[in-house]
Parts: sequence; C-alpha cells; structure tokens
Amino acid sequence: MPVEAQSAIAWLKELRSLTADENGAQRVAWTPMWLKAREWFRGKLAELPVEHHFDAAGNSWTTLKGDSEKTLILGSHLDSVPNGGWLDGCLGVIAAYAVLRRIHDEFKGKPPVTVRLVDWADEEGARFGRSLFGSSAFAGTHSIAADRGRTDANSTRLEDALAACGIKVDVIGDAQRERANACAYLELHIEQGPVLESMGLPLAVVLGTKGVERHAITFHGQEAHSGSTPMNARHDALAAAAKLALEIRPIAKRHADAVCTMGSLKTFPGIVTAVVGRAEATLDQRDLDAGNLAAMFAEAKQKSEQFAREEGCTVEWARIWNIEPVPFHPKLIEMADEAIREVAGKSHRMPSGPLHDAAEVSRAGIPTVMMFVQSLKGISHNKIEDTREEHLQMAVTAFDRLAAKTMKWIQSS
Amino acid sequence: MPVEAQSAIAWLKELRSLTADENGAQRVAWTPMWLKAREWFRGKLAELPVEHHFDAAGNSWTTLKGDSEKTLILGSHLDSVPNGGWLDGCLGVIAAYAVLRRIHDEFKGKPPVTVRLVDWADEEGARFGRSLFGSSAFAGTHSIAADRGRTDANSTRLEDALAACGIKVDVIGDAQRERANACAYLELHIEQGPVLESMGLPLAVVLGTKGVERHAITFHGQEAHSGSTPMNARHDALAAAAKLALEIRPIAKRHADAVCTMGSLKTFPGIVTAVVGRAEATLDQRDLDAGNLAAMFAEAKQKSEQFAREEGCTVEWARIWNIEPVPFHPKLIEMADEAIREVAGKSHRMPSGPLHDAAEVSRAGIPTVMMFVQSLKGISHNKIEDTREEHLQMAVTAFDRLAAKTMKWIQSS
Repeated sequence: MPVEAQSAIAWLKELRSLTADENGAQRVAWTPMWLKAREWFRGKLAELPVEHHFDAAGNSWTTLKGDSEKTLILGSHLDSVPNGGWLDGCLGVIAAYAVLRRIHDEFKGKPPVTVRLVDWADEEGARFGRSLFGSSAFAGTHSIAADRGRTDANSTRLEDALAACGIKVDVIGDAQRERANACAYLELHIEQGPVLESMGLPLAVVLGTKGVERHAITFHGQEAHSGSTPMNARHDALAAAAKLALEIRPIAKRHADAVCTMGSLKTFPGIVTAVVGRAEATLDQRDLDAGNLAAMFAEAKQKSEQFAREEGCTVEWARIWNIEPVPFHPKLIEMADEAIREVAGKSHRMPSGPLHDAAEVSRAGIPTVMMFVQSLKGISHNKIEDTREEHLQMAVTAFDRLAAKTMKWIQSS
Repeated sequence: MPVEAQSAIAWLKELRSLTADENGAQRVAWTPMWLKAREWFRGKLAELPVEHHFDAAGNSWTTLKGDSEKTLILGSHLDSVPNGGWLDGCLGVIAAYAVLRRIHDEFKGKPPVTVRLVDWADEEGARFGRSLFGSSAFAGTHSIAADRGRTDANSTRLEDALAACGIKVDVIGDAQRERANACAYLELHIEQGPVLESMGLPLAVVLGTKGVERHAITFHGQEAHSGSTPMNARHDALAAAAKLALEIRPIAKRHADAVCTMGSLKTFPGIVTAVVGRAEATLDQRDLDAGNLAAMFAEAKQKSEQFAREEGCTVEWARIWNIEPVPFHPKLIEMADEAIREVAGKSHRMPSGPLHDAAEVSRAGIPTVMMFVQSLKGISHNKIEDTREEHLQMAVTAFDRLAAKTMKWIQSS
C-alpha cells in the first residue's frame, strides 16, 4: 500500500492557490491567511477518524490512536515568511498527512502505536521576531517573559495578536503536556541551501541543527578629515572591521562544516569625506559541534582585538543570541539513512544550518531526526523557492519508509 | 609698526562670543547667524577709510585704494559648519583685517598698491552641499545650473535662501568682475590635520590643494541564508568591499603624500542572518600630482575588479565628483617660506588635502599661496578645534610679513 506521494504534490499546489499571491506564500503566523491555511488543513483531516485539538501554545495536534499509547509524532509548520515559498514548512505537514493516511489505511484505522501529526505554531517568527514559538513552548524552553513585550510592524502587541487567535500567553507552557508518551519525532523539510543540488543528490539525513553564536561587534576609531589626515595618522574603524570580515572565512574553514557570516556592517559618520570613526558589525557563527563553535567564537574575538590594536582602535562585543548545537538521535539517523538509500540509491549526511522545530523537540529529550530534500539553487524564503517534482515524490516516499521503520522501532523498544 | 597679532586673537574671541553656542560655531552661510557675523565684521571695518560692497555672489569686498590699481587680495571665509570651531575660516579673515590695519597705518591710508580684503560667501557648503560657492563664482567655474535645484534639510531651495540674502542666482557670474587688477591672493588657514603638530612646527607654506577623485562603488553578490549556505558557495559582496577597504592603503602609500579613504560602506539586506548581496562603498582619493591621482584611481578600479572576480561578484563605479590638483604660485611659495622662517625659525612645505577658496582663486589665474598654522590634535569642524595662542600670534605675524613681501613683488613686477 504505497503512500500517496503524487497526491501530496497536488495538495501542496491546492494550498498554494489558496494562500499565496503574486509575491509568494503569505501564511504569516497569527494572521487571517495562516488561519485560513489551518482551516483548509483541518478539512483534509476530517476524512480520517482522528481526534484534533489545539494546545495552549496554538500547536495543532491530530491523533490516530493505536494499540499502544507509545507515540510517533510527525510534523512541521504551515506558517510562512511574507512573500515565502510554496514548500518551506508545509511540505513537512502535507507529507506527514500522506503518511498518516497510509498508516490509517494499512492498519484499518488502528495502528500498533499511536501516531500524531503536529502543525507547529509560528516556526518562522516573521511577525514578532520570535521563531520556534510553538515548539519551544512544547519543549518548555520558551520564556514568555522575554517575548511578551514584542510588537509587530504596526505596533500590535504579541499578547494581543495571540489572544485574537485564542492563545493566552501566560499559559503557553501547558503545551508541554503534549509530550506525554512521545517516543520519536520525524520532520521532512526542504534543504534551503545549495549542498544537495551541488552533489546531484535528492535527499539527505540531517545530523542535527548547528549551534549559533550571534554577536554585535563595534570598532571604535577616530573620525577624521579624509583630506587632511595622513594615512599613518588614522584610526580607521572600517579597516579593523574589514580585516575581521575577511578573517572569519579561514576561521570557518578550519572547522569542516562551520559557517561564519558578517551580515551587516555600518559606518559612522559614514560620509565620503571622513575617516570612519565607528564601525558596527554583526557576526553569525554556526557549527554542529559545541567545541568547534566555542573555538570559532574565541578565535574571532581574539582576532578582532588584534585588528583593533593594529589599527589604533578598540573593540566591543555584545551577544545578540546563542543556542547550543542539537544533535539528532543516532538510531533514527541510521534508519533515515536506510530509508533514503532504499528510495534514492544514495544518501548524504549533513547538519542543518537553519534552525527547525525538530531542534526544540530534541531538546525536550524526544528522539528526533529530520530529512532534507534538495532545493533548486538553494533558494528559500522567496517565491522562486522550488524543488523538482520527482524529488518531492521521493521525499514523501522515503519519509513514509522512515515512519514505518520508526513505528517498528518504537514497538520493539 | 608691528601687526596687532594679540588683538587679532581678542577679535576672534569676540566673534566666538557672538556667534557660537555650547556646541560650537553656528555661522552657517545664508543663515541669520552668518549675517550677524558679517555685520559685526563690517562694524570693525568702519574704523578704516575703505570702500565696501558685496558682489553678485555675496562675497564681501573691502578696498583700501593704493597709488597703483595693481591689487593684493587677502581673504578667507567667516562662514562655518554647524557646531564648528572658532578658527576655521575666520582666522584668515581676522588676520587679513589685522594686516590691512597695519598697511593703513604704515602708509598713512595710501599704500603703494591697492589692498583688498575678501570674505568669501559659503566656503563650507554646509547648508546646501555646494562648497566654495562664492570663490567659484569669482573664478567663473560655478555652473549655477547644476546647483539651483539644491535644497536644505528643511526643503528650502538654494535659490530662495540666497534671494533672502539679496543674491540672484542667475547673475552670480558677475562676481568675476572683482578679478580686475588682481595680482596676488594670500590666505591664512588652520591646518585641520595633524601634520604640523606631529612635527612640532607652528607654520607651513601650502604647495597647493590636492586633486580629488570621489566615487561610489557598488559590489553585487548573492544574498543567501547565513545558516544553509556553505562558505565555498557564497558570493559575498562584503568580502569584496572589505578587500578594497584594505587595498586602498597600499595604493595611497605608493604615492608619498596621497590619501585614500573609504568613508561609507553599506550592506544589503544588512541583516545578521544573510550573506551580503550588495555592498555600497564610497572612495575619496587625493593627491597634489595629477598623474599620481590618475594612477591611484586606475589601481583602485583594477583591484576592485579583481576582488569582485575572486568573490564571484561584479562591481560598478560611478563618479560622484572630481577636481584637478591646484598648485600654488612658485614665487609666492618662496616668499611664504621666507616669511615663516623669519618668524618661526623653521618652515615646512605641504599640500592641502582639504579644498580652500584659494584653489578657486588660483584656477582663475591669479598668483596664489596659503599658509597653515598648526591645529591641536588635527581636529577641525568641531567645537574642540583649537590652536595655541603663541602659534596664532606667529601666524598673524608671518602672514603680515608675507603680505609686505608680496606688495613689494607686485610693485616691482
């Protein structure tokens, strides 16, 4: 009894026609278009004999009861960034739905273990700047205190926007109750990067999500007249920042899969006739290995201090945000690898640079793994985001095989 | 009969008390405070038997008629930047006034050649972004067509602001009439840089003003996710710009007195989680030698293209503005050097990186030279701009000697 991989693509197109405009997907969490997507999805679920409810954080839970209370969870997110793609998040939800239908049919409505489908609330954080909202509430890692003051671009408070969707921010931690009996969590997602395309492979098993160190770095030099200040009398904050912008690359390359990015650099006073007195940079460093990540952070900091000295400047660091690496479950990694090889002939193992809800589930102690399917040109968060249809079919099929293997593993453990 | 060097300092302080607030000098051209400064100065001139008028561009001319119509012009500017210093520009005007008084007294009101004092209108261009306004009208290099559309921060049009000061922008070229009989132009100014202080010298003769090449440089790369894009798959526009920010320094150093400055660098989208897709930089290059300047421009352009290629980016250049180098008059340079040595024991010869009204006068074919006096810490355009009082006295005295020598030179030529 094969999973309906071709139908999954048709459902994704149906969702796109309902919730995208000429600029791309518009399913931003806590907006009417997102609620519309969720309503459409509940319509699909109505065909199955399942229980459905929203938890205290707005996560959408669909349960197909099994002989055992031991539970396999499949999920991802329906919400998108503004002007987003047609696959980011919803591919994982729709694939999980196809798998749930296959399991229902195969076991005549009563599988050996309980299977649940979760559509996480606000993975993207596009409106209020707080990503992984629902999954972190589920994991118990969300401190609402730090986020309740957030507002959107129209100054609407997070608290009020959530209340309009039936969520009381003070009790979102109650979502942790959904963790009861959870034995494994599986998520399929598009890669959102160029690695699989460059290797000519359709699918990869994800080893975990990289840890992130995110900092604001300010170099202080001396503003000076560009005409009257000799080169050797300058304290050029831009020169120190430029050295660091180049040095983060060998730092990353010393650590295989690591990435380091200076995404923003601002100069002050920032006029054509003045030597830069102050340069404000951001640095984002990611690796799957906590030791590597700590080493990269220390190297960048030490180098920035050296460059500041060389240029007669000073430097200050301020942490914007960080998260530890989240390695996925070894046994589930093996099974995902096997499932991919059965479907695609060849598998690849890679860490995820972007964060995903799966990282929060794993932090809650639930064995977790993800699968990636190739993204064309590595582009995501854009209306041109795309994946070949044959790769989408292979992805749904491999994900279904992984679910079958995982159910057996849960039964036997 | 010595020049009143000590009085000159007292007059400068009097002007400061009238036209500065707790943030510095506020004599921005075409504003009431500037008009107030000019009115105060006319009050000073009333003590002398001189003719006074404003020309068509708002330059203020004071004439002490001599036996000959051959004319020596002394001048600088009373206008300042907002929150400016107490010496920039007005030192030259006050010193010229002190010299005019000495000449008047020495020759009992009738010197052998005619002596004129000019207070140029809007040297700084602080309000409308067009510096050297009055002196370029005098030189005939000002094309009002390019500037009449300018507005200030409050959207007041240049044309209307000037009309309020009695200036009709269509006839500013009539200021060229003031060039009649001009045989030499002398200007004293603060250095506005750190060179003389670092050498322990009070005074320098200025060899000319450096030519300037000013460009906007845009590197185009590919915006990409900072987490999912491997280091070797990036087209990082910031990396290419950073290489250029560092390369302009060896380029400048290959040309003795040259300076190269990247004063502004902007990154797009400029967010912590995205590789920079576009970087916009400015480059300001200056040298007294036109050949060097052209070579530096060519080297920077060639290097920027190399760096763009290395980073998988492209680069575009757009000229913002340029001006050729303006070398001062060899005989006047010799006489200024002599005058400085007589007063300070030791002289120094240096080009000026900043532009000055003297450059426009020289472009009009009038033999010109400037003197610089040391600036403390090289700081100008700031309320902490300062010069030691003994250096100010030496400056006025040396400038007076230069004027005396130049009068003799005019008489004998």
